[in-house]
Amino acid sequence: MASIAEVSADNPALEAQAAILARPATPERHMADAIRALAIDAVEAAKSGHPGMPMGMADVATVLWTRFLKYDAADPRWPDRDRFVLSAGHGSMLLYSLLHLTGYAGMGIDELKHFRQLHSPAAGHPEFGEHPGIETTTGPLGQGLATAVGMALAERMLAARFGKSLVDHRTWVIASDGDLMEGISHEAASLAGHLRLERLTVLWDDNSISIDGGTALSTSDDQLKRFAAYGWAVKRVDGHDPAQVAAALSMAMRSKKPTLIACRTIIGFAAPTKAGTAASHGSPLGASEAQAAKAALGWNHPPFEVPEGIAEQWHKAGARGATPRRAWLKRLARHPQRAEFERVTAGRLPENFHDAVAALKAEIAATKPKLASRQASQKALETLVPAIPELVGGSADLTGSNLTLVKGMGTVTPGNYAGRYIHYGIREHGMAAAMNGMALHGGLIPYGGTFFIFTDYMRPAIRLAALMRQRVIHVLTHDSIGLGEDGPTHQPVEHLASLRAMPNVFMFRPADALETAECWELALRRADGPSLLALSRQALPALRSDAGENRCARGGYVLAEADGPRQATLIATGSEVAIAMAAREALAADGIKAAVVSLPCWELFALQDEAYRAEVLGGAPRVGVEAASGFGWERWLGPDGVFIGMTGFGASAPFEDLYKHFGITPDAVAAAVKRRLA
Amino acid sequence: MASIAEVSADNPALEAQAAILARPATPERHMADAIRALAIDAVEAAKSGHPGMPMGMADVATVLWTRFLKYDAADPRWPDRDRFVLSAGHGSMLLYSLLHLTGYAGMGIDELKHFRQLHSPAAGHPEFGEHPGIETTTGPLGQGLATAVGMALAERMLAARFGKSLVDHRTWVIASDGDLMEGISHEAASLAGHLRLERLTVLWDDNSISIDGGTALSTSDDQLKRFAAYGWAVKRVDGHDPAQVAAALSMAMRSKKPTLIACRTIIGFAAPTKAGTAASHGSPLGASEAQAAKAALGWNHPPFEVPEGIAEQWHKAGARGATPRRAWLKRLARHPQRAEFERVTAGRLPENFHDAVAALKAEIAATKPKLASRQASQKALETLVPAIPELVGGSADLTGSNLTLVKGMGTVTPGNYAGRYIHYGIREHGMAAAMNGMALHGGLIPYGGTFFIFTDYMRPAIRLAALMRQRVIHVLTHDSIGLGEDGPTHQPVEHLASLRAMPNVFMFRPADALETAECWELALRRADGPSLLALSRQALPALRSDAGENRCARGGYVLAEADGPRQATLIATGSEVAIAMAAREALAADGIKAAVVSLPCWELFALQDEAYRAEVLGGAPRVGVEAASGFGWERWLGPDGVFIGMTGFGASAPFEDLYKHFGITPDAVAAAVKRRLA
Repeated sequence: MASIAEVSADNPALEAQAAILARPATPERHMADAIRALAIDAVEAAKSGHPGMPMGMADVATVLWTRFLKYDAADPRWPDRDRFVLSAGHGSMLLYSLLHLTGYAGMGIDELKHFRQLHSPAAGHPEFGEHPGIETTTGPLGQGLATAVGMALAERMLAARFGKSLVDHRTWVIASDGDLMEGISHEAASLAGHLRLERLTVLWDDNSISIDGGTALSTSDDQLKRFAAYGWAVKRVDGHDPAQVAAALSMAMRSKKPTLIACRTIIGFAAPTKAGTAASHGSPLGASEAQAAKAALGWNHPPFEVPEGIAEQWHKAGARGATPRRAWLKRLARHPQRAEFERVTAGRLPENFHDAVAALKAEIAATKPKLASRQASQKALETLVPAIPELVGGSADLTGSNLTLVKGMGTVTPGNYAGRYIHYGIREHGMAAAMNGMALHGGLIPYGGTFFIFTDYMRPAIRLAALMRQRVIHVLTHDSIGLGEDGPTHQPVEHLASLRAMPNVFMFRPADALETAECWELALRRADGPSLLALSRQALPALRSDAGENRCARGGYVLAEADGPRQATLIATGSEVAIAMAAREALAADGIKAAVVSLPCWELFALQDEAYRAEVLGGAPRVGVEAASGFGWERWLGPDGVFIGMTGFGASAPFEDLYKHFGITPDAVAAAVKRRLA
Repeated sequence: MASIAEVSADNPALEAQAAILARPATPERHMADAIRALAIDAVEAAKSGHPGMPMGMADVATVLWTRFLKYDAADPRWPDRDRFVLSAGHGSMLLYSLLHLTGYAGMGIDELKHFRQLHSPAAGHPEFGEHPGIETTTGPLGQGLATAVGMALAERMLAARFGKSLVDHRTWVIASDGDLMEGISHEAASLAGHLRLERLTVLWDDNSISIDGGTALSTSDDQLKRFAAYGWAVKRVDGHDPAQVAAALSMAMRSKKPTLIACRTIIGFAAPTKAGTAASHGSPLGASEAQAAKAALGWNHPPFEVPEGIAEQWHKAGARGATPRRAWLKRLARHPQRAEFERVTAGRLPENFHDAVAALKAEIAATKPKLASRQASQKALETLVPAIPELVGGSADLTGSNLTLVKGMGTVTPGNYAGRYIHYGIREHGMAAAMNGMALHGGLIPYGGTFFIFTDYMRPAIRLAALMRQRVIHVLTHDSIGLGEDGPTHQPVEHLASLRAMPNVFMFRPADALETAECWELALRRADGPSLLALSRQALPALRSDAGENRCARGGYVLAEADGPRQATLIATGSEVAIAMAAREALAADGIKAAVVSLPCWELFALQDEAYRAEVLGGAPRVGVEAASGFGWERWLGPDGVFIGMTGFGASAPFEDLYKHFGITPDAVAAAVKRRLA
């Protein structure tokens, strides 16, 4: 192998590395080296993974986890713990090493030995739910940072509700170059700066390396200047100098703004030839380089072994939070809002939820209002917002269109977090990720509005909500060509299908005001995944007056049975259910007996037993109606079914003209039935 | 109606407006007022639209279109014209007014009167293809800006190839607050700054208003500082002072960096009560406010009428480019690269394309290499890149994983645009939009790589490519659980379905090296929409040795007929075709005769005639195999079909373990067939 002197001509990082290694090794360095050694060993054992980042950021992480981060390894779910987010999720062994070393149950040495193997909590990237010390799933770059903004916001909002004696913690993020290059980082950092989320600190692993090579290949950003432009405090430090790191973290603790600390590090620190290069980023170092790296650190222990002295120091660090946690428990015990705090933290809906929803549904059933489903959603919120204090809303700058703001919510503003409504700005992706962060933090149920088409902008965050099984609710208005003049860029076509295809998403599309209330109820009751409500811009007639059973709970049901033996079954969702009902009437006039099935949630319908589904769908020829792509409809229509909907993109015109132009009308449905029966 | 003095206490913009209106009205102001009046009238007539932006930016646009922008209204397709992008697409009447006033054919007063009506080229948002003066479709915020980055890059790259005598133009963008808040603006501006795209100028409509109200509700960004951090030149001007605007545009013309000009404007300028407020943003002013706005401007002409003098001045402006265009045509006529320039500009593939592809396929058929399809794609590129000079590639920082770089391409670097490979950085969304811009600009065929999962990050730009019918090619590797250890955040499940549902996308998933070459051929030949290639990380056996006909061209075909009357048909795509083939063999050993159908492109298969499809799919029971969600597979499997694939998210483990864990194996397929036949 080439000596450091030989290769450093090509790789200036090696010279810097030699200088750092020449410093007297402190106990803190040894603690950091334990992280490095475990990361090296686990990646070698898995024959895959990312050793470079944990090796580079071990010193920074050690300072944070031994001196600043508030946590108690004995109780990973302590509500007032600091949140630590490894946005650079590929460096997962950094997190697993920390969880192991500080003594979290369930992350033993065997788990590390099974890094990246089936059923190990030490997955390739940190997966929320695999281990309680993992606060959020990360890996898709930028998501961790943006999710952390939601956590930091949730902390401020809960502190405004329950006071500092119960809610008084911070959010710390380790982010990579990639995190800061992703567009979502702009939305998240800009929002955090605007809202002055002073409890948020981002430690940027400023190692100048990405997968393709030096970051200079693709970026010339002055990141400190950029974040200062967002209203952040910024600081640059040597990430291998614990004193500098500690001073910057202290500064962040005092800051009245969110703080970005650029930690200049050497990726793959200690690797004799690969340090400072992309070669240490995403592959095992290889046996000899791994061995030499450990030798350079003076780490003479067998793989996966941490000497007792160092292990003990780490365990001590992991118990630093025990005393403050016990003090917090005492404060909780005598806190006047204890019951409410425990309720919202556990994610239990309030006692009066059922009654409030029942009253809402009864009123709608009695008055049968003709409302756009976005208006019906607003009507539902007028009941739900007062009934559920933990429900917090917002919109990506479409408040008046999404109808997401109701009286008395109050607005979250910079420095004042008592309100319940967030102006997220034109930041759909940042909004969705922040909502994930609020849900993960606990204590709040977030909903947010935008046009349905813009789910395209926030899809990675919606997917993470589904993967992490988080209760977030998206209010997605203007859900078809029914939005009219704004044209094809604003008209969803494939969006229902594309989100129905995503695992663990409940995609609701209610047909009238009563169904909208029912879908809202289901979305709120659902504690294990996101719910999406696709809502119309245009007004919809009331179709039902039965408020008893939540009929949307089965996903689909017979809204109107045929007057006699069924000759056809019309199946529709949302705004097209009224079209199907009108077609049913037209057919009846011609003596054809058709039933109408409303199918507001395919996922719930799929969960029903076969017999129920068969009864609803019936044996007669089926015609599906939806102002959207027919992709996936074969599932309900069968091979001989007919689909009336969109076959391409929309167009710009008043919505009535568009429905005619694209042939989604009662007449077209009736004609299709007749052709089918002919 | 309240007078300005009465309402200005609540609305400080009105005082500023009064001061501007008090300035002596110049001929230039009257020209700008023609835009304002047409915008007001069209929005009133349509009873929907966005008058505020055209009214606010009319002065800026007048300076640009009468003094700086290089164009000839008589030839909207002149290749060396400047590109004008209205990123703030909701202000479409600004663009339509300009096209009308400067004399573009096809945008007469009747078209403006039918603003936002069916079949009018004056759609709600500017739609590429509806009128040649519309350079790109805009509306989804941030897209125009990011697309313009691709146009500006294409100009530099073509200038490096053909010289300044043929390629010497600029890209101008009008962007809104919303454009700058979207995450994609970060990716685009950062890339442009890094690559020093000095011919790009962004005129930011800095009006402090978004839909929810003042931008202060949601943002505190210092945009000039932010763009300076990206390496841009920045300047702030009064957008209602033509002299200041012109000075800034002159500065931009001399700048060695891309330039952001913050144009301080009053939204809805001239409206007596709604100016400076969100009320003028997205709704008609209403008759009385409209009337009063015109009165304030001294515009005393009937709706949709522009006085002859003003109309003539505008027509003159529209013909400013006639002389330079004729000079350019002369230069083209005698240019040594004339034929090549005309070929690439017209989007015609080179003469030798067919032979090069034939040779590639013949070699693969002869050698039958076992390659991951991402490797097969690289192999194809090794032939295609030399054969097609206009083919330019790149990756969002996954070059070594996507295998998108082949020898001899050369890299595009800041200030040097002769290379053919772009390191887009960790900016998937910005990459996809820039690729759209390159394709729209003409002269280049862009391809770009990332992991298939990250189509989620670039979905809005993919959709625009489909809507605009642009030839862009996405190389999407690591296309299933076959990527292994990186785990569920990196494993596509619903992505095939979600992109198959999108209109006008060809979603290819080749099964071996030969199919990969065939799919590349089809993607390149396709001139009217985007092609997506989903490619495996893991190695795949060669399945065919027939290089004659491009069998993927029909979307699906019988790869292996049953040895006798079919008892089952196994239908698969990509990496699962080999699994189906192994199952076929296992079944044969048990005396069951099964055919295998490869279905690499559902869209092409759907375009075949019914008889062909029926013949391929056959009458025997069908089993589909795809390591993905089964959503949409009913279309090919029918009601009694069986699907072997994913039912939820993936997991982190070596890929062989995952295929076993999720039951996607030859044994599982064979067992499913037997159960089905039992």
